[in-house]
Amino acid sequence: MQHIDHLNKLKIISLGIDTYHENVIFMRSDCPICRSEGFTALTRLVVHHNQNSIIATLNVIHSNLLQENEAALSDMAQKRLLVNEGDFISISHLKPIESLSDVRAKMYHKKIDETAYHRIINDITNGLYSDIEIAAFIAACAGDNLDLDEITWLTKAMIDSGFKLKWDKKIILDKHCVGGLPGNRTTPIIVAIVAAAGLTIPKTSSRAITSPAGTADTMETMTNVNLSIETIKEVVDKEGGCFAWGGSVKLSPADDMLITIEKALDIDSSGQMIASVLSKKAAAGSTHVVIEIPLGETAKVRTLDEALQLQYYLKAVGSAINLMVEVLITDGSQPIGKGIGPALEAMDVLAVLRNQKDAPLDLKEKSLMIAGVLLELSGKVEKGKGSTEAKKILENGTAYAKFMAICIAQGGFTEPKFAAHKIEIKSEIAGIVTAIDNRKLAKIANLPEHPIVHRQVFILTHPSAPKYKNSKHCLPFMPSRRENYNIRLII
Amino acid sequence: MQHIDHLNKLKIISLGIDTYHENVIFMRSDCPICRSEGFTALTRLVVHHNQNSIIATLNVIHSNLLQENEAALSDMAQKRLLVNEGDFISISHLKPIESLSDVRAKMYHKKIDETAYHRIINDITNGLYSDIEIAAFIAACAGDNLDLDEITWLTKAMIDSGFKLKWDKKIILDKHCVGGLPGNRTTPIIVAIVAAAGLTIPKTSSRAITSPAGTADTMETMTNVNLSIETIKEVVDKEGGCFAWGGSVKLSPADDMLITIEKALDIDSSGQMIASVLSKKAAAGSTHVVIEIPLGETAKVRTLDEALQLQYYLKAVGSAINLMVEVLITDGSQPIGKGIGPALEAMDVLAVLRNQKDAPLDLKEKSLMIAGVLLELSGKVEKGKGSTEAKKILENGTAYAKFMAICIAQGGFTEPKFAAHKIEIKSEIAGIVTAIDNRKLAKIANLPEHPIVHRQVFILTHPSAPKYKNSKHCLPFMPSRRENYNIRLII
Repeated sequence: MQHIDHLNKLKIISLGIDTYHENVIFMRSDCPICRSEGFTALTRLVVHHNQNSIIATLNVIHSNLLQENEAALSDMAQKRLLVNEGDFISISHLKPIESLSDVRAKMYHKKIDETAYHRIINDITNGLYSDIEIAAFIAACAGDNLDLDEITWLTKAMIDSGFKLKWDKKIILDKHCVGGLPGNRTTPIIVAIVAAAGLTIPKTSSRAITSPAGTADTMETMTNVNLSIETIKEVVDKEGGCFAWGGSVKLSPADDMLITIEKALDIDSSGQMIASVLSKKAAAGSTHVVIEIPLGETAKVRTLDEALQLQYYLKAVGSAINLMVEVLITDGSQPIGKGIGPALEAMDVLAVLRNQKDAPLDLKEKSLMIAGVLLELSGKVEKGKGSTEAKKILENGTAYAKFMAICIAQGGFTEPKFAAHKIEIKSEIAGIVTAIDNRKLAKIANLPEHPIVHRQVFILTHPSAPKYKNSKHCLPFMPSRRENYNIRLII
Repeated sequence: MQHIDHLNKLKIISLGIDTYHENVIFMRSDCPICRSEGFTALTRLVVHHNQNSIIATLNVIHSNLLQENEAALSDMAQKRLLVNEGDFISISHLKPIESLSDVRAKMYHKKIDETAYHRIINDITNGLYSDIEIAAFIAACAGDNLDLDEITWLTKAMIDSGFKLKWDKKIILDKHCVGGLPGNRTTPIIVAIVAAAGLTIPKTSSRAITSPAGTADTMETMTNVNLSIETIKEVVDKEGGCFAWGGSVKLSPADDMLITIEKALDIDSSGQMIASVLSKKAAAGSTHVVIEIPLGETAKVRTLDEALQLQYYLKAVGSAINLMVEVLITDGSQPIGKGIGPALEAMDVLAVLRNQKDAPLDLKEKSLMIAGVLLELSGKVEKGKGSTEAKKILENGTAYAKFMAICIAQGGFTEPKFAAHKIEIKSEIAGIVTAIDNRKLAKIANLPEHPIVHRQVFILTHPSAPKYKNSKHCLPFMPSRRENYNIRLII
């Protein structure tokens, strides 16, 4: 049954309410349309303006915020509908969204097909789903609910729903770390080495969500990362690599919406994660990708079984979408580098690139290992010779030169700075560090803070003991007041 | 980590925005608290006032709707926090809600225990969950994800989270129909018969959500159904039975919140449904319940296997919560009675009670059958003699007298009326009705309409053919314009 007639028009008032990506329409409860249609709060409606329409959730107003013949849209809804204050909109009932029956089938543990995944992801991308409908889809995909076919179809659907960057080289290199390891800031070093080798590695990275720093945050202490697609292409054409913030490029809108709800629900579902990672790489136009899985009790992936299954799925799905994927399972038992937090990690990166004597050895070695795999993956370097070649490029200063050149091309370079305040916290007893809890370290460094000065955790080691375990270190205690400071461990 | 200090206080402004049961707090994006805390839209916060606190989702305001030091709460949030315009509130960060890890475990198909269900339902009842968190819980329980233990624990948790009506009789009778059958308005007749037999049957019923009429809607055409608990008790003390709208009593707040999200997601999960039905019966203080499952291709329950499993679970869970449950599987292949819609169903009910010659025989026979089972269940009548006794009470007028007495006690009786407009739609061809689609019938009768006059579907039959199938009937075609009218089938 369709309502062909649209109802009386309502005038748009801008209230300026941000409900994030869910479209919301605000109407008065005594508005004639509400009354005649029997609308109540949470009803989903179609809102029309000119030839456009969106679906929005109704929030009812019981005050004079709006007049009887007025309506307001949430910020995103107003943008999507291309409507301004003073314009008129009309409303109609929502016909059932077909892809939601696919979501329900998934909730009842049925396997749904490739077309179903395309329908669902398209509808999510086009703003048709309410937040609870997205939540239901995410919950339905949690655990082991998706088999290999379904993860592949979900990945393809996500690639097709966004747009794809095109490069004019045959080999486009990329890397990703599934996370959970503080201080693991290998990307800038790897990009510098690989670009210096003459290969193309247009690296986009994310900001931190639950960890203390993402690569974008770290790079932002040294250069500009908010690059448009045009600028990214210019920088990469010129220098072979870049350090851009992925968020300014918006390659995968469905992925962003899914991630928002996943974070709100604190779910980490491997099927969704695989689809998210690989679809972003494909959307970025990458052809050869190295994925790192840090394995450890306090990392994201905690058992070897889990890591091996993830490795298997990543390679299989990658293959299905014509992506050459190499997966490295690495040591996730302790942090990498000396610093945790954007500025301190930036300093570690520069120390390695500048071949300083006090540069953190573990960060250097890991970067060389991964860069080596990328060099081999590209075919440019023989198998087994990758990290040797990478080491050469780093130690002869070419990587550092390339790094600076990329920063200049992105807008300039600034030296990262320490925080204004420092505090040294000594342990009250001497002892031997036998284990490090990555999640707790990440938490200390990620406490809510004033946005200008970052809290930084700075861990000193004895020069001859690159690994912290079993060295005479003591962990800092948890600070109880919110201050901006560096913490140093003293031997 | 805890923030012991609460942040600067914000003054409450009443904006009058109804976001239904989810608590929402509106704050300006440039408010010092937002900025220093790094809050963005969709953050969940704790809002404090005096000794009370609630959890609310942040919606950010980018306009002058609020001043920098002001905040607004959604209607329900303001009520829950017991706060008024001009009062001051403070905000703090939200510690993770523990029961959400139980929800996540359920999403990963783990069996969670009795304490977990109690934690989850308590937190939902206390408004701690956002709508997407409730959606995730519902999705996690969908399909066959709950075993018998879990359904029992969920039911117990829902009983414990609401409150329980207490009666001073040992035997409190109740009935429920799982739905899907238009016109199946047996409840008022059954209540009249059972109360006339001297038993206690304090029946609360619901309004329609997706069907054309609930018992409460039908009874509302004849008497007042919005009764407070005190009034319900008075009526039942006096007359043994009542026809109250359950919504005014709020026995099971968690159930209401779950149902709202289930309807929004259009999910019908049997585990949740069993818990919902039985917890409501237990909360109403019932001791003996008859549950009807109409079985048919276009009813809610479509296969005998499904019906038998539902029957088994209902009895098993009922037993675990000390409820005597009898489950009847009935014919769900066609509607009951002559009318669909509140007023027409009320007329059918009165016709049966008044022993009119043209009363719909199928409605009469079904009501007698179920009333008979209730009489036997109570022990008052021997097994096998229930429907005979019920028939006596109906045909000698006692049931009708009791029905009127209950209506008077509830505030009065009015004769139900036809709609102002009628249209007779004749089929264009003659033929034989071989099947009736209950879902389509329900849809016609449930189209959006002006709330004062109800659309009613009125099906005439040949007096000698109480069943519609195989009689010379033709189904009405779907109307294309929205008008208020009755539809009659003409033989």
